[in-house]
Amino acid sequence: MSKQKKKQKVKKPKPRIFSGFRDVFSEDILLRQRMIDTIRRVYEKYGYLPLETPAIEYVDILGKFLPESTTPQGGVFSFRNPDLSEKAQPDDPNTWLALRYDLTAPLARVFAQYVDIQRPFRRYQVGPVWRYEKPGPGRFREFYQFDFDSVGTSSMAADAEICCVICDALAALGFSEGEYMVKVNNRKIMQGVLEVCGLADLEISESSQAMTVLRAIDKMDRLGLPGVIQLLGKGRRDESGDFTEGAHLENEQIAKIEQYLGSRAESRDEVCRGLFELVKDSEVGRKGVAELQEIDSFLSALGYNGKQVEFDPTIVRGLSYYTGPVFEGVLTKEIKDESGQVKQIGSVFGGGRYDDLVKRFTGQEVPATGASIGVDRLLEAMRSTDNSSCRKSTADVLVTVMDKKCMADYFKLAQEIREAGINAELYLGNGNIGKQMKYADKQEIPLAIIIGSDEFEKKEAQVKDLNLGRKLSEEILDREEWREENPAQQSISRSELISKLREMLG
Amino acid sequence: MSKQKKKQKVKKPKPRIFSGFRDVFSEDILLRQRMIDTIRRVYEKYGYLPLETPAIEYVDILGKFLPESTTPQGGVFSFRNPDLSEKAQPDDPNTWLALRYDLTAPLARVFAQYVDIQRPFRRYQVGPVWRYEKPGPGRFREFYQFDFDSVGTSSMAADAEICCVICDALAALGFSEGEYMVKVNNRKIMQGVLEVCGLADLEISESSQAMTVLRAIDKMDRLGLPGVIQLLGKGRRDESGDFTEGAHLENEQIAKIEQYLGSRAESRDEVCRGLFELVKDSEVGRKGVAELQEIDSFLSALGYNGKQVEFDPTIVRGLSYYTGPVFEGVLTKEIKDESGQVKQIGSVFGGGRYDDLVKRFTGQEVPATGASIGVDRLLEAMRSTDNSSCRKSTADVLVTVMDKKCMADYFKLAQEIREAGINAELYLGNGNIGKQMKYADKQEIPLAIIIGSDEFEKKEAQVKDLNLGRKLSEEILDREEWREENPAQQSISRSELISKLREMLG
Repeated sequence: MSKQKKKQKVKKPKPRIFSGFRDVFSEDILLRQRMIDTIRRVYEKYGYLPLETPAIEYVDILGKFLPESTTPQGGVFSFRNPDLSEKAQPDDPNTWLALRYDLTAPLARVFAQYVDIQRPFRRYQVGPVWRYEKPGPGRFREFYQFDFDSVGTSSMAADAEICCVICDALAALGFSEGEYMVKVNNRKIMQGVLEVCGLADLEISESSQAMTVLRAIDKMDRLGLPGVIQLLGKGRRDESGDFTEGAHLENEQIAKIEQYLGSRAESRDEVCRGLFELVKDSEVGRKGVAELQEIDSFLSALGYNGKQVEFDPTIVRGLSYYTGPVFEGVLTKEIKDESGQVKQIGSVFGGGRYDDLVKRFTGQEVPATGASIGVDRLLEAMRSTDNSSCRKSTADVLVTVMDKKCMADYFKLAQEIREAGINAELYLGNGNIGKQMKYADKQEIPLAIIIGSDEFEKKEAQVKDLNLGRKLSEEILDREEWREENPAQQSISRSELISKLREMLG
Repeated sequence: MSKQKKKQKVKKPKPRIFSGFRDVFSEDILLRQRMIDTIRRVYEKYGYLPLETPAIEYVDILGKFLPESTTPQGGVFSFRNPDLSEKAQPDDPNTWLALRYDLTAPLARVFAQYVDIQRPFRRYQVGPVWRYEKPGPGRFREFYQFDFDSVGTSSMAADAEICCVICDALAALGFSEGEYMVKVNNRKIMQGVLEVCGLADLEISESSQAMTVLRAIDKMDRLGLPGVIQLLGKGRRDESGDFTEGAHLENEQIAKIEQYLGSRAESRDEVCRGLFELVKDSEVGRKGVAELQEIDSFLSALGYNGKQVEFDPTIVRGLSYYTGPVFEGVLTKEIKDESGQVKQIGSVFGGGRYDDLVKRFTGQEVPATGASIGVDRLLEAMRSTDNSSCRKSTADVLVTVMDKKCMADYFKLAQEIREAGINAELYLGNGNIGKQMKYADKQEIPLAIIIGSDEFEKKEAQVKDLNLGRKLSEEILDREEWREENPAQQSISRSELISKLREMLG
C-alpha cells in the first residue's frame, strides 16, 4: 500500500475532552500549588504524615457510601479487571475495579491491610478523585481532595484537633476571623432525634429512610426550613416541576425535627444544653451531646471561640459512613460572582468521625475521624477574594531574539540570568520583535530584554518593563510623546544588567 | 429482617490492592516531594508553565505509540464510555475511554484543541500515568512522570535547552559532574542508516520492521552487541528458552548497523563527523547530523562539556512518535542493591522531538520536543545514593500524655509549640508512657515531652532526645548506669521549653 493511501485511511481524531473533565492551566495550578503547600505545612505542624494510595481499587474495597450510590454504577467509574478472563465467576470480588471516589475508603483499606502501622495513624493525602455524576457548571467528574485523618483513636481530642486544623489552615490561607467558621454537629445526636421521634429502628448508616431524613436536613441551606419540612413529609416539587420523594414522616415527628433544627444559641455550651433536653431519653443521643461537650472543653481551653467553631444542628454531611461528630468548614466572606451578584462561598472543608469503616474489613472496631478540603471550591474562593494574586508566568524575564545568528549568545545571556537566581525564558518562536513583545505581554512576563547587533557591540541591553508599559500606555494619551520617550524601556550596560533586573523585579 | 441477619449476610471484603499497584508511605512521599519541588524550580527557571490534563482521555486521542501496543488492550487500561448506551455505534470514536499512559499525547491534544495558546508553549506536568503491563519487581502499572516540553518550535535551541534542563535538574538534586550524563541521538540519523542499508521504505514512525530494528538497538545495554546482532537477523533465544523474532536483515545490512553503533568518539563533534560519513548519501540522515551539530554549538557555547552531554548512536527510546533528537539522562554513579551487588541506576530522564504528534489532530505540522523523568526510578536512585536522607515523621516533637485528665493542658502545650514554628504531635492513643515512647521511636520523631502531675505543679517538663537515646543505648553496656543517669532525658522549666526545643532540634 502506498504511503498516500495509508494516510487517507486514517481519520484524524478530533481534539476533545471527556465530558465532566477539564484541562487546568498555569495560573490556576500555580495558585493551587501555593494553596496546597500552605495547607500541607499546617497538616505537618500537627504531625500528619503523607500517604498515597492508587487511583484504582477493587469495587468492594470502596463500598457504597456515596449519595449517588443508587445509580447503577454507584456513582463511580468502574470497569472489568483486565487480568481476569471474561468467563470469570460473576461473584469473584476481583472482577470489578473502579477509580477511587474519595480518599477515606482507601485509607480504611490501608489501615486494615498493614498490621504494622503505628496507632494512632495521622495521615494526609492529596490527589484527584473521580465520580460518575452528571456534570454541570463547576461540577466536575474529576476533582482534587486534600484529606487529613486520625485513625485508631476514639479521643474527642482528635475531633477537636480536626476543628483546630481547619481553622489554622483557613487562617494560613489569609482568611481572618469572621471570614470563616467551622460548624460541628454529631450524627449520634441525629440518631437520638430519630429515636425520640419514634424512629428508633432507623440506624443512619444502614437505613435509606434515615438517610432520606438526613439529606432533607442537608438541604436546609438551599431550600430553607419550609422546603426541608416538605421533604420530611410527602415530598417536594421544585420550580422546574421535578418531584423529590419525601421521608413520609408524621406531623408530630416533623415537629420534633423542626425543634431540633431550631436548637441554636450564642454559645457552644448553650447549644449542647438545648440538644440535651431534646434527646435526653435516648442513650445514643446523650452520648452525642457528651461528645460535643468534650470537644467544646478542648476548644475553649485553646481559645477557639464560638465565632470560629460553632455547634450547628443543621450540619449533616452527605456520606453515610459517619458515626459521630461531623464538621464543615465554611467561608462566610461574601464574594461577587462573574455577573456581579453577591454570594457566599459556603463549605470548603467537610468531614466527620467514621468508627466503622475499618471494621468493614477486619470486624475489629477502629475509631477514626477526619476531614477533607474541596480543593477546587477553595481555589475558586481564593481567586474571588483578594487573598491571592498569581500571575500565570513562571519566567521573570523574556530574553528576546532579534538576530537568529546570535542565538548562542542569547542562550548564554539567559543562562547567566538564571544563574543569578532569576527565572529567564529564551524566546524560541519565529516572531519578529513586536510579536515577541506581544508574547511576553500575553504570558504576563514582567520584563523583556532586547539586544540587537548594535547593543551586542556596545555591550548594552534594552530592558522593557511590561507592567509599567501597560500602565503608562493606559495613562498617556499623546502617542507621539510615548514613542519618543518610551519611559518603560531603558538601556542598561551589560555589566549592570543583573543587578538592574533584580531591582526592577523588586 | 433483623439487624443480626442483615450483618451476617454481608461478606467482609479482604483488604487488598490491585496487582501492579502500591501504597506509598511517608518516607518516600516526603523525599519525592522534595525531589519534585527541586526539579520544578529548575523547570520554572527556564520559564516552563504547569499544565494539568485529566486522567481519562478518549482512546483515539492517546493513539498507539507504546512498545506494548501489540497487546489487545494496546498497553492501556481502557473501558467503555458509561455515557453511551451499550448499543452505541461500534465505530463511534467516543465509545472507548482509557487512563492516560503518558503526558505527551494529552499535551498534543491540548495544543490542538485550544487555538489561543501562545507559541512556543513551554509546559511542565507531573502526575501518575497508567500502563497495562505485566507487573514485576520495581515495575508498576501506576507510576509518576514529570515532563517538560516545548511545543511550537523547530529550533534546535529548544532541544539543546532540554539537555541543559536535564543536567541542571540532576545537579540541583545533588549529583555532581561525572555522576550523570545526558546521551543524545537523532531518529533522522537512524532513518538515514536504514536508507543507506537499502531499507528506505521503512519510515520509523509507521513501519513495525523499522521499530523492530530500533528496539533491537535499544537492547544494546542489556544484551550487548552480539545479542543486538541476533535480533537484527533471525532472532534470539534467551536463557529461559524464549525466542524473540528478529528483524530479518541481511548480513550486509547488519554490518552497516554494526558500523553505525560503533560510531563513538571523545568529542560530540567527532561523533558527528563519523555519523556524517556513514549517512552522507541520505538526505534525512544528513539533516539529522546537522541537527546534532547545531545542538553541539549551543551546548559548547554554554559550557556543557562532552562529559555532561554526549552523542551516542545506541540511544533509541522506545516510543514510536519521535522524529528528531532523542535524549536520555543517565546516572552513571554506581550503587549497591539490597543484596550488596554493585549496579548502575541507568536512565532516569527520557525524551525526544515529536514533530508529528499535534499533526495527528489538525493536519498542521507543529514541531515539539521534550523529556520526561521517571520519578520512581530517580527516587530509588536518590534513596540508594547519599544524596538524601529523609526521616518519615513530620512532627519534631511528640507531646506525650501521662494523665488523661489533663488532656486540655497537653493540647495547649502542643499548640504553644506549634505557634513557635515547631511541628508538634499530640499523642492521641491509649498507650502508657512506655508505649508512647516506642511510638515516637518507631515514627522517628526526634523529641518527646513528658509532663506528669508533678511537673505540672513545678512548671517543668521532661524532654527526651530519642536520637541521642538510641545512640547512647547502643554504646552503653551498663544498664544500671543508664537508668540512673539517663543523659538523653532532661528536666526543663516551662518558661525555657521552647528555646530549649529549638536548640535541641538544631
